Amino acid sequence: MADRVKTVGWAAHDSSGFLSPFQFTRRATGEEDVRLKVLYCGVCHSDLHNIKNEMGFTSYPCVPGHEVVGEVTEVGNKVKKFIIGDKVGVGLFVDSCGECEQCVNDVETYCPKLKMAYLSIDDDGTVIQGGYSKEMVIKERYVFRWPENLPLPAGTPLLGAGSTVYSPMKYYGLDKSGQHLGVVGLGGLGHLAVKFAKAFGLKVTVISTSPSKKDEAINHLGADAFLVSTDQEQTQKAMSTMDGIIDTVSAPHALMPLFSLLKPNGKLVVVGAPNKPVELDILFLVMGRKMLGTSSVGGVKETQEMIDFAAKHGIVADVEVVEMENVNNAMERLAKGDVRYRFVLDIGNATVAV
Amino acid sequence: MADRVKTVGWAAHDSSGFLSPFQFTRRATGEEDVRLKVLYCGVCHSDLHNIKNEMGFTSYPCVPGHEVVGEVTEVGNKVKKFIIGDKVGVGLFVDSCGECEQCVNDVETYCPKLKMAYLSIDDDGTVIQGGYSKEMVIKERYVFRWPENLPLPAGTPLLGAGSTVYSPMKYYGLDKSGQHLGVVGLGGLGHLAVKFAKAFGLKVTVISTSPSKKDEAINHLGADAFLVSTDQEQTQKAMSTMDGIIDTVSAPHALMPLFSLLKPNGKLVVVGAPNKPVELDILFLVMGRKMLGTSSVGGVKETQEMIDFAAKHGIVADVEVVEMENVNNAMERLAKGDVRYRFVLDIGNATVAV
Repeated sequence: MADRVKTVGWAAHDSSGFLSPFQFTRRATGEEDVRLKVLYCGVCHSDLHNIKNEMGFTSYPCVPGHEVVGEVTEVGNKVKKFIIGDKVGVGLFVDSCGECEQCVNDVETYCPKLKMAYLSIDDDGTVIQGGYSKEMVIKERYVFRWPENLPLPAGTPLLGAGSTVYSPMKYYGLDKSGQHLGVVGLGGLGHLAVKFAKAFGLKVTVISTSPSKKDEAINHLGADAFLVSTDQEQTQKAMSTMDGIIDTVSAPHALMPLFSLLKPNGKLVVVGAPNKPVELDILFLVMGRKMLGTSSVGGVKETQEMIDFAAKHGIVADVEVVEMENVNNAMERLAKGDVRYRFVLDIGNATVAV
Repeated sequence: MADRVKTVGWAAHDSSGFLSPFQFTRRATGEEDVRLKVLYCGVCHSDLHNIKNEMGFTSYPCVPGHEVVGEVTEVGNKVKKFIIGDKVGVGLFVDSCGECEQCVNDVETYCPKLKMAYLSIDDDGTVIQGGYSKEMVIKERYVFRWPENLPLPAGTPLLGAGSTVYSPMKYYGLDKSGQHLGVVGLGGLGHLAVKFAKAFGLKVTVISTSPSKKDEAINHLGADAFLVSTDQEQTQKAMSTMDGIIDTVSAPHALMPLFSLLKPNGKLVVVGAPNKPVELDILFLVMGRKMLGTSSVGGVKETQEMIDFAAKHGIVADVEVVEMENVNNAMERLAKGDVRYRFVLDIGNATVAV
């Protein structure tokens, strides 16, 4: 077996979550592997949770990051789709069993042996490290073609946030022109949900606790309506008007008021993951055959479709580019919700001494 | 307007739920109406709740009953589908607006103006009374053809219990040969769920707290497996094996252990209506894209399809026929779960003096 190869990244070393330069190794480029120089990596809210071990399954040192765009620097001799110099993307997962019902049906996301872009254990027993690093080595199957006309760095968050909102719209049939979709929360996920929904031809109502976001939602993002969820008169008027709702809010919140906004047969899809149990009144749901769906990112095939769809329709995230010397400041601002709408780390231009 | 016509039924007069003979009136047969002599009426658990006002929306006197088979005695001059002497069925609802999205799409069940077979208010302001009565008058649209070869009285519960389990299997795609379906609870709903699922070609596992029902589930009803939900070894083995679960239990119970039994992308459909909020751990669901569905009875078109499917496949309920003088005893036994699996009231042969 080939020696492992040194690289550098930015790791948290304890639950303070403070990120600092860190030298570690990745496997040598295998037959089916693509090695890439990381150009940009999006900052997902889950990165923040994980570097602080708030979900309880972090091991340190931890290099986070799962919204990566880079340039291919080496390919294994069995690699067919990519050549050196290609722009490519990496998302939330980097390996799966390839054989189970989920993998065979192109929903690798739900493979029981899924390996995440960071925190999972690789075949050789090492902890996989993420995209806040200068290089990555990934099996070809889990690498995405990056369309020439899809802008960088703004396209980067599509790989995580974009896929997280596109996949449920497809799976739950909330992508039909003329449908009325509610989008709860206007952050990294929510603002992309609005953009995809408008590209599908849907009528979109943004649902938020912050009246101050109305102008932005309608005039900048193109939403058709804005609903302040705490305003009883507005919510009363909106009752039973929506075909579906994509709920992107991770902070604990009541779901039953959202179900009231749905028409009969309406679907509430939660893509945030509140870490407290939610309560449902089943009888109310039964009377309208309403359902609660959940979803994570799409499989490889669907994620590539999403990227190509975004390129075709000019969909990118609204991003703020962060130099690596400011990464900890960006994390602090993210914790306070002070970002419109996604930080992207400029890793390609970073110099790092360890 | 024609005079109203006297008939007799069995009504509860207060929250004791005690049923006694009761004279009341129904509307004269209108142009689109079918008048029928009731032969049999199934006893649904919700009848028991409603005569005791346990759901909080009963008005007295209350004649319950929404699983009715009878014989046509009169038809209005615009009625096309039925003639005098036809055997017909009546289910959970007897009118709807006919114009909304739900009615147009054959899911009248979820019409906001739905009129239930009892407890709803009719157009003339009277309270609609149910099928524990000698006669009913129903708009043709909401009356079902009863196939000649579908046995009475055993077929009667199909109109409520049968439709309640058939409809979600169709709507949520849990009717594909080879799928593995869990059925929670082996009562009036559950035993019919097993029969329909087997007719669809599914593998069926009955999930119950009562080990004593194993023999019945497998040898009498034809289930493939039986899972005692309190047995940790059995449930551990069954984890991640089911495509879907139909949960028929109305008593409060935890749903998360059921979600563990589902494969990724599995669907838990609750058709009982627990009257306490249920708690869900969203993060666990997201990791497997699992969903919680709900469902009531099918619309008119689907219910007729279900009846015809049952006739073709020889599906009827296991029933115990009750003479009307014993109706209160049957209600007491039902409250204790002492019925295998559905009481059917022999109303056609009852004599009643009021």
